[in-house]
Amino acid sequence: MANKLRLGIPKGSLQDATIALFERAGWHIYANGRSYFPSIDDTEIECMLIRAQEMARYVNHGVLDAGLTGIDWVVESGLAVESVTSLVYAKQSRQKVRWVLAVPEDSKFEKAEDLGGKIIATELVEVTKRYFAERNVPVQVEFSWGATEVKPPMLADAIVEVTETGSSLRANRLRIIDTVMESETHLIANRNAYNDAWKREKLECLALMLRGAIAAQGQVGLMLNVEKKNLQQILSVLPALNSPTISELSNSEWVAVNTILEESVVRDVVPRLKAANATGIVEYPLNKVVL
Amino acid sequence: MANKLRLGIPKGSLQDATIALFERAGWHIYANGRSYFPSIDDTEIECMLIRAQEMARYVNHGVLDAGLTGIDWVVESGLAVESVTSLVYAKQSRQKVRWVLAVPEDSKFEKAEDLGGKIIATELVEVTKRYFAERNVPVQVEFSWGATEVKPPMLADAIVEVTETGSSLRANRLRIIDTVMESETHLIANRNAYNDAWKREKLECLALMLRGAIAAQGQVGLMLNVEKKNLQQILSVLPALNSPTISELSNSEWVAVNTILEESVVRDVVPRLKAANATGIVEYPLNKVVL
Amino acid sequence: MANKLRLGIPKGSLQDATIALFERAGWHIYANGRSYFPSIDDTEIECMLIRAQEMARYVNHGVLDAGLTGIDWVVESGLAVESVTSLVYAKQSRQKVRWVLAVPEDSKFEKAEDLGGKIIATELVEVTKRYFAERNVPVQVEFSWGATEVKPPMLADAIVEVTETGSSLRANRLRIIDTVMESETHLIANRNAYNDAWKREKLECLALMLRGAIAAQGQVGLMLNVEKKNLQQILSVLPALNSPTISELSNSEWVAVNTILEESVVRDVVPRLKAANATGIVEYPLNKVVL
Amino acid sequence: MANKLRLGIPKGSLQDATIALFERAGWHIYANGRSYFPSIDDTEIECMLIRAQEMARYVNHGVLDAGLTGIDWVVESGLAVESVTSLVYAKQSRQKVRWVLAVPEDSKFEKAEDLGGKIIATELVEVTKRYFAERNVPVQVEFSWGATEVKPPMLADAIVEVTETGSSLRANRLRIIDTVMESETHLIANRNAYNDAWKREKLECLALMLRGAIAAQGQVGLMLNVEKKNLQQILSVLPALNSPTISELSNSEWVAVNTILEESVVRDVVPRLKAANATGIVEYPLNKVVL
Amino acid sequence: MANKLRLGIPKGSLQDATIALFERAGWHIYANGRSYFPSIDDTEIECMLIRAQEMARYVNHGVLDAGLTGIDWVVESGLAVESVTSLVYAKQSRQKVRWVLAVPEDSKFEKAEDLGGKIIATELVEVTKRYFAERNVPVQVEFSWGATEVKPPMLADAIVEVTETGSSLRANRLRIIDTVMESETHLIANRNAYNDAWKREKLECLALMLRGAIAAQGQVGLMLNVEKKNLQQILSVLPALNSPTISELSNSEWVAVNTILEESVVRDVVPRLKAANATGIVEYPLNKVVL
Amino acid sequence: MANKLRLGIPKGSLQDATIALFERAGWHIYANGRSYFPSIDDTEIECMLIRAQEMARYVNHGVLDAGLTGIDWVVESGLAVESVTSLVYAKQSRQKVRWVLAVPEDSKFEKAEDLGGKIIATELVEVTKRYFAERNVPVQVEFSWGATEVKPPMLADAIVEVTETGSSLRANRLRIIDTVMESETHLIANRNAYNDAWKREKLECLALMLRGAIAAQGQVGLMLNVEKKNLQQILSVLPALNSPTISELSNSEWVAVNTILEESVVRDVVPRLKAANATGIVEYPLNKVVL
Repeated sequence: MANKLRLGIPKGSLQDATIALFERAGWHIYANGRSYFPSIDDTEIECMLIRAQEMARYVNHGVLDAGLTGIDWVVESGLAVESVTSLVYAKQSRQKVRWVLAVPEDSKFEKAEDLGGKIIATELVEVTKRYFAERNVPVQVEFSWGATEVKPPMLADAIVEVTETGSSLRANRLRIIDTVMESETHLIANRNAYNDAWKREKLECLALMLRGAIAAQGQVGLMLNVEKKNLQQILSVLPALNSPTISELSNSEWVAVNTILEESVVRDVVPRLKAANATGIVEYPLNKVVL
Repeated sequence: MANKLRLGIPKGSLQDATIALFERAGWHIYANGRSYFPSIDDTEIECMLIRAQEMARYVNHGVLDAGLTGIDWVVESGLAVESVTSLVYAKQSRQKVRWVLAVPEDSKFEKAEDLGGKIIATELVEVTKRYFAERNVPVQVEFSWGATEVKPPMLADAIVEVTETGSSLRANRLRIIDTVMESETHLIANRNAYNDAWKREKLECLALMLRGAIAAQGQVGLMLNVEKKNLQQILSVLPALNSPTISELSNSEWVAVNTILEESVVRDVVPRLKAANATGIVEYPLNKVVL
Repeated sequence: MANKLRLGIPKGSLQDATIALFERAGWHIYANGRSYFPSIDDTEIECMLIRAQEMARYVNHGVLDAGLTGIDWVVESGLAVESVTSLVYAKQSRQKVRWVLAVPEDSKFEKAEDLGGKIIATELVEVTKRYFAERNVPVQVEFSWGATEVKPPMLADAIVEVTETGSSLRANRLRIIDTVMESETHLIANRNAYNDAWKREKLECLALMLRGAIAAQGQVGLMLNVEKKNLQQILSVLPALNSPTISELSNSEWVAVNTILEESVVRDVVPRLKAANATGIVEYPLNKVVL
Repeated sequence: MANKLRLGIPKGSLQDATIALFERAGWHIYANGRSYFPSIDDTEIECMLIRAQEMARYVNHGVLDAGLTGIDWVVESGLAVESVTSLVYAKQSRQKVRWVLAVPEDSKFEKAEDLGGKIIATELVEVTKRYFAERNVPVQVEFSWGATEVKPPMLADAIVEVTETGSSLRANRLRIIDTVMESETHLIANRNAYNDAWKREKLECLALMLRGAIAAQGQVGLMLNVEKKNLQQILSVLPALNSPTISELSNSEWVAVNTILEESVVRDVVPRLKAANATGIVEYPLNKVVL
Repeated sequence: MANKLRLGIPKGSLQDATIALFERAGWHIYANGRSYFPSIDDTEIECMLIRAQEMARYVNHGVLDAGLTGIDWVVESGLAVESVTSLVYAKQSRQKVRWVLAVPEDSKFEKAEDLGGKIIATELVEVTKRYFAERNVPVQVEFSWGATEVKPPMLADAIVEVTETGSSLRANRLRIIDTVMESETHLIANRNAYNDAWKREKLECLALMLRGAIAAQGQVGLMLNVEKKNLQQILSVLPALNSPTISELSNSEWVAVNTILEESVVRDVVPRLKAANATGIVEYPLNKVVL
Repeated sequence: MANKLRLGIPKGSLQDATIALFERAGWHIYANGRSYFPSIDDTEIECMLIRAQEMARYVNHGVLDAGLTGIDWVVESGLAVESVTSLVYAKQSRQKVRWVLAVPEDSKFEKAEDLGGKIIATELVEVTKRYFAERNVPVQVEFSWGATEVKPPMLADAIVEVTETGSSLRANRLRIIDTVMESETHLIANRNAYNDAWKREKLECLALMLRGAIAAQGQVGLMLNVEKKNLQQILSVLPALNSPTISELSNSEWVAVNTILEESVVRDVVPRLKAANATGIVEYPLNKVVL
């Protein structure tokens, strides 16, 4: 289809976060409760809601040109697709997730090799089989329809399960003994689509704006005024990452400094800026950051 | 474990209906939001929440003595278990559900045999494969992670999907061309557990009370007074199913009639009872009916 | 249409109460959020949601065979329809509602005649005009789109407004000076439909069951045992309205008494029954009462 | 005030349960969100919402004639009032509550005497002081504004706290070492009011109906038919508590049995009744039971 | 009243959007659930909630000095008022709404002239009558109390109904055949009030700030740095609408560019700015824009 | 504990506002529903939820290093702690609260001295006793468990109660006759902790950022461009509080002005800026302001 990008949006736990991300990036997706074809305010894109687990299948087949899904499910599918960009965002935090091998807290298992002959429950069957095969550990991998973390020790000996913070595993008295794979969301594309010039440019534009929206989430703008004689001290306090914008004021002995900071360091930086004689320190929110 | 029945309760869409059914049958199950081991007010039972799809597996292994699940998932598993009783209840209605073969409304497919070489999406992969194999129709059956009914025609050529009323299929412009299997909830048991005298009696008691609670749902009690000379006419109006209780009154020319009726026929029966000179007609609710 | 009754259900404030009433009477109406044609589990009836204010219009035209609406809106419309039965139920209580003439608490108006030349705001324009015309009081009646009770004294001099308990009027510091009309819900029918034998019987059956469901709401069943020697005293305590059913017990010196009571008198009757040596006093709920 | 009973309803955690209990007993209390003077459909009663902790104070002063509150707060107040009746109902269950002395799970404290010189946090300061004084154990009792169970060991050495099931204490890793007092709700009255004939009769009537409503909560009605030759066996299965009503049927070889049972035993009794050849076994709900 | 502006706020579907708009413009309106006189943090304004349909009536009478309402209801009323400013905002989008003439999808009606002798249902009776009178088409216009779009073809032949996107009409299988009038919200004023100098200045100030808040909704701020040699290329990428602010930096070979953009074009502009060597591109949110 | 600050967060009505304030100041507190030890994203801080009434007790004892609570409860406790900073924020507004002496609207009490021998209900018993003792007015102060404002005249003669706007007192028909004390939230510290250099610096840093977040709440940023010849007029319109930042533009006859304003004055200032020929006036939101 000419000048039309068919894009898969992950249905389920990532759906709301994905739609919110597109909103911040500049695209409004309207997911009508029951339809699987949400509308989008861009005549060049056609959206479809697809389970993250099935995204690679339909992108590989070419039914979709591109889609957002976890790299874990791409690897699980064993199918070939292009990764346009990684996008570190998730439901709660903005960290990568991990698929971990976990055993009962009070079991004697210490490493994968201790699990020979045991039952391993997981949603990620193929990756798990490969993990044990590479270590020459014969196990029985059972597909789990959910609630995997409550299965040991009664219904399984160990599990391979996804986790952000590990708190659900701890709450179920499980102990992590290895990381099977790390994962994060990717914008993936069908290879033919990616080789089409118009589609590739559209995808790169999408990727740029999505990354710009993600970058803005944990960052803020900071403005302050400072006498020129104190400027070097101020600059030494600011993180070196991005060079701040220094502008001339009418009062020629002063300058205004405007910069972008990680929000998490502001509470440490501001007291030191004030100690270095900055005045009029103001923090303001950002929508997008493309440095 | 002596004198302890390990019982699987279906987690997910049937969970609330199952707990409500046990409540009406006389057992209070307290499903604490996060635990998979709900408590129950019967020291002889130990509950565990298990996905309906996995129930047969764990009952077959003997990790559970018994469990409630759809007979569809039992057949899909291919594992041997006992059926203690069927229990026709479901989320919305009290009908059986059907797994049907459905195709796009405007496609030319009329029967299973027309689908040779096509892609069939379903959650019930093994039953579906068997269905087509018995008809010698070679198809590609793909496991669907959900939202199966929106896949044709873009992501699949046909689907095998569960339905109560067919309305979701019609809303997605699909046409049913065959019934692959009918299903209803069963109380299933591990074969060894079922051969244990104490466990079997406990299971039969459970089955009796669960059926009693189900029976009461669509039924009501009806009381009325009638002169003896009009009794035969009254009895001819009442459905013949259950014989009503006729009791003597102090006024010996009258009797009281007390009976159990399907709630759905009351609106037709009451006007005819009144026409037949019944007086003091009163309908009252029931908790359990064991005829 | 042969053997099909087209029935209007009032949309809006009475809708939920009406559907609940039909449920108790034995008909299940499924109001799908957006459709104006709710389904009903009776193949002889076809429902349509219609505003109470417009019901008489469409019943009179014959587009509907029958409908439920307040007699106030029937009179307001000035159109001819049959009343099959009145049905005293309302949103909160089971009383009639009144359209009253109300003025500011601290105004000097005492009766309709004091309002000559004034502005009267109301939703019931025609009835109000007739009310003042009959008294030869010239007023300006303005149609009010809602919130009528907050209009005096700024936006109107007096209002004609509907009330169940008067509390909303008091809260707005208004004083009632006359009742313009009383109203209650009626099942109304088109005259031709009412003269059709099949439709009339269907309507009478509906009316019987709806009244039976309404009657049951404020009533309960009461059972007790009493020695025959104390029976007369027990009967003298029971309200004379319905004669209780007295049945013979195996122990021939005792009888069982079973009766229907207004729920509101039970708290006064039970202590007196107990004082009169009744034993085993049990109150139970009712679904329908057709005496 | 003649012929008017001023009644305190406990505000807060018991409020909804109390209003629901009155509803079942036959009095409708309308608690308007913001008012402390809920209306009641009995012109002889005037309600006021009062905190359970302050009820004894205002009943003792005579501002209220009577009120519902826990006997714990009555004892804590040290004031003289009459108890008209105890009423075992609570938020979740229908058990008594206990104020217990609890210490950290892993502390070495085993009995009250081990706590000499320690800090005890509690909402029930006076009762707690008396408890330790009777044992000659000098402690520092600190009033706790809430969240008492999280205070040990950081903010207190031990606590005296109310509990129904002990689960909140266990969740906070506390161990119960003694019961300081048991408590349940009472209907209490001012002594002068209780000596007024009209008020006492009104209070006794209230007490009768409230107890009748509480009794009905855990009980159900059970009806069945049985051949006379099997009657003795049936009666031997029924709990001996209440004698069932046995009535004559038209078919003189059969009788109908109607009885009241604890709901919790029905699941055990019904299978045995069926084994003893009972037919038409029907369980129905009750509103009130006054035996 | 001197130095006091009586202002009508539209009650109902526009109420929340209007209060939110005033919030963004700098006035906080506190709509206490039941009162029709919301408070506002401006001692020079007095608010009253009035139905949009009645706003022109009370502004014309002079009971209110001004009010916000749709120009459709102003025209329908036929009354003379001043329009201070139009304010394009609505519940969902920021587009004008249209009152359209719609007929059943599969009817043969193509234009107004085809409807001679037919029934037209609408809430906008006077405007509709005028529309058909101007075309000399005799029709019967019936006032519709709501749910107008479900009336054809059973209860009306055509309707005149308000729509933003047409989706509700399509869902009811209706086809638009003409636009009867376009409408948007206006701030209207009583003519005498508008000729009072103080009131007019207050109204103009209100209008300025409301427009500033509306303008800010779809716009964002964009900052970037660029070498002077690339400035012209950057400026050619930016929409010509508003001239950007270009400020001198300490590094004299660079400038900072700060501009206001429609949010909807940012996703197209940013990739082109980056291609033109802009650095440090940051988008930030705005509260008000007064250019 | 070295390099660890134990900080009390007020549980209850101030909890959500406090957590939101820390969020804006740069610290994320995760209050897990049931735990009293919320986590915080700062390894140097350990949080505990404590009732405001008990905060001074535990800070004084040294169990906590610091905590946020109202100065009213600090005074009530009579214990010695340091005040690090006051923080004017509250549930609804950003004003101080007042504990006032209030009497029934229609009582004859005019001043504290009129209340000799009367009952005063309050939660702030010690402060209230001191207030009357200083005036030599003997009264009976009763501890009130809540709902103090409904007690007069039935349960108390007067009350001492906290209020922000007085509306709850007026709604209960009470009249304020004196202010007993004003209060606001303080960050308080244990004296030893405050004398520890590391803890004091940590506390001062917290105080700086919390005040910065509070300051930003009612303030906004305002940018505009102006020709140099009009600059003085523009500056005369801006509040004199903070000196605006004036920066040079590429067009040397214009300057850009950037300033911080109270949000509440923007609606008055902007029309005057526009009248003074400012262009491109833009208001933007702020996160923190440290001047």
